[in-house]
Amino acid sequence: MRQNAPVFDFKIQSRDGRARVGHFETPRGVVTTPMFMPVGTQGTVKGVSAQELLDIRSQMILANTYHLMLRPGESLVAAHGGLPGFTAYPGPFLTDSGGFQVMSLGHMRKITEEGVTFKSHLDGGLVELSPERSVAVQEALGADVIMAFDECPPFPAERDYILRSLERTVRWLDRCLTVKSRPEQALFAIVQGGIHLDLRERSLELTLPFDTPGFAIGGLAVGESKAEMYPAVAFTAARLPEARPRYLMGVGHPEDLIAGIAVGVDMFDCVYPTRTGRFGYALTDDGRLNLNSSAPRSELRPIDENCDCYACRHYTRAYLAHLVKAEEMLGPRMLSLHNLRYLHRLVERAREAIASQSLAGWAQTWGERYFKGAI
Amino acid sequence: MRQNAPVFDFKIQSRDGRARVGHFETPRGVVTTPMFMPVGTQGTVKGVSAQELLDIRSQMILANTYHLMLRPGESLVAAHGGLPGFTAYPGPFLTDSGGFQVMSLGHMRKITEEGVTFKSHLDGGLVELSPERSVAVQEALGADVIMAFDECPPFPAERDYILRSLERTVRWLDRCLTVKSRPEQALFAIVQGGIHLDLRERSLELTLPFDTPGFAIGGLAVGESKAEMYPAVAFTAARLPEARPRYLMGVGHPEDLIAGIAVGVDMFDCVYPTRTGRFGYALTDDGRLNLNSSAPRSELRPIDENCDCYACRHYTRAYLAHLVKAEEMLGPRMLSLHNLRYLHRLVERAREAIASQSLAGWAQTWGERYFKGAI
Ligand SMILES: [Zn+2]
Ligand SMILES: [Zn+2]
Repeated sequence: MRQNAPVFDFKIQSRDGRARVGHFETPRGVVTTPMFMPVGTQGTVKGVSAQELLDIRSQMILANTYHLMLRPGESLVAAHGGLPGFTAYPGPFLTDSGGFQVMSLGHMRKITEEGVTFKSHLDGGLVELSPERSVAVQEALGADVIMAFDECPPFPAERDYILRSLERTVRWLDRCLTVKSRPEQALFAIVQGGIHLDLRERSLELTLPFDTPGFAIGGLAVGESKAEMYPAVAFTAARLPEARPRYLMGVGHPEDLIAGIAVGVDMFDCVYPTRTGRFGYALTDDGRLNLNSSAPRSELRPIDENCDCYACRHYTRAYLAHLVKAEEMLGPRMLSLHNLRYLHRLVERAREAIASQSLAGWAQTWGERYFKGAI
Repeated sequence: MRQNAPVFDFKIQSRDGRARVGHFETPRGVVTTPMFMPVGTQGTVKGVSAQELLDIRSQMILANTYHLMLRPGESLVAAHGGLPGFTAYPGPFLTDSGGFQVMSLGHMRKITEEGVTFKSHLDGGLVELSPERSVAVQEALGADVIMAFDECPPFPAERDYILRSLERTVRWLDRCLTVKSRPEQALFAIVQGGIHLDLRERSLELTLPFDTPGFAIGGLAVGESKAEMYPAVAFTAARLPEARPRYLMGVGHPEDLIAGIAVGVDMFDCVYPTRTGRFGYALTDDGRLNLNSSAPRSELRPIDENCDCYACRHYTRAYLAHLVKAEEMLGPRMLSLHNLRYLHRLVERAREAIASQSLAGWAQTWGERYFKGAI
């Protein structure tokens, strides 16, 4: 069995119950966990510049292997020296494996033991993706953390299918580690099993021996309810090794971050803050502010008095609501920026609560106010 | 006849032929002319933040009375303390009178001696605009420079219509000055007359006695050829008073700025740099770079090595071309920013050439390279 020794240090700084604050040392800088990763699907976090990502204190950016291999192609990114040169964001990156996107975006996909064949959503051209190809693309993209090529079954799926799929995902993990060649990149394995705890157990049993420098919880936030998702997260996180970062993939509603942090998750990513921003919504401690509605159009105060983002320091709700109504680019741009900063501040506050052993009380207070929605 | 004494100082610093460098002292700061104004139609320069306008050394922003009176309404802008509070841009503003936009955007407009009645392009509601209403709206918006309410006839128009229109525009100017009440705002008169030099002469004869603190050359860049426009600009500029700033409305192609500066124009505005940016074009000394074409997709150099804008300091042509192709918001955003900076740099270079009495040679060298288009 292949081994993949931890290439980056992960040091736990403080704990509160199962939650922890950690320092994850990547070649492009130390990342403090728990943390939220903005999603730069096509090599850009939608509407946000590299400097703004630094300004809002982003720590690590996620980019999508599937999208970038199709356009502009990984070799152009490599010609820029990888994602930092291409995107001008100088900090750490993580790339997904392409597996999830193939399942959700590729047409007429065919999954075999070898890999996946699908038609590009861009031009219909036939494309193959396999563990070997995914690692090669991710090595060209040059992120600090790369992900094992996995299958994320749809929801709902047959138990039996999920079982066969997760076993194949483990064989694919082995193939990924066999071809992986860049020692400065850490490859994370992905635990699958859907919402079935016994299948999660089986996936853990097969995956943990690979001892990768981090582990992801995959196959969630694909349509199941939160009542189904949270137990699967808690069950899996509790069985992952203490000394490795734990990454809950594709999850990013504020309440999900807090729920995940409480059970020991360290890393999150989601398009939610930028997507909901483009739709005219702003995240606040009092719930989600709908800037398409009439009330904010006369409010001369910022989205959030306590937020230090550019939008909150310069613009009123009335101005931002005007931009949304007038379909001006600056509106989605500013709401995306604010929402990302909101989630970064949320995890910063969670880290402070962990450090002072007050996470449970802080989370309860936050939740009561957020779900009252007195916006 | 109403008078409107110059409320701001305009001091000419240096001259080269008919071109001049001036300092125009507005309540919100000294503006060095010649200068180009970015257009913030709906209270936002499309895709560009207030801080970015400062970063690229914009000096004065134009906002549109027609758009802002319809949405969000001038009273909301006034509730923010005017355009600087609303838009977070702390420098000088200029508002147009609404006249031009009514002609180009209003439906079923009816022009009488009293003013214009039209249907809003937003909701079809019936709206009236008159000299008095235009000044009232512009006083609520709170710009430093406001414009007389004029009619800009379409191109082509009958000579006789243009004559009757420009005479009415002068009567409207008189009514504007009668109701104008805020001494910290300078109202500029607008000279009309289309491309007919004798009608320009007539408009000048009627308009100059009002002795407003600045004069605009209106009614151009509405469809006529450059061979028709340039003589009208030169003729009018030569007859405007030396001691007042001269503003050529709606003009902003790079070659038009240089041609206008050479005949003594001090101020310009145009949506061109942001609009062509949204279409994927970048202005350079070697012509207009089309980022939709295939060549830039592999170029690892910036749009312009000599440009100090954020896009040129951080992103390659290949990355920007990828953003354009992928329809990512950051693409039009960065190209708009670069194009505005390009025009600001162009007038900065023209000012340096005037100061060193080398405008003609500089302009010729610039033009030879620009129109060779060796991009
Ligand atoms: Zn904010
Ligand atoms: Zn530039």
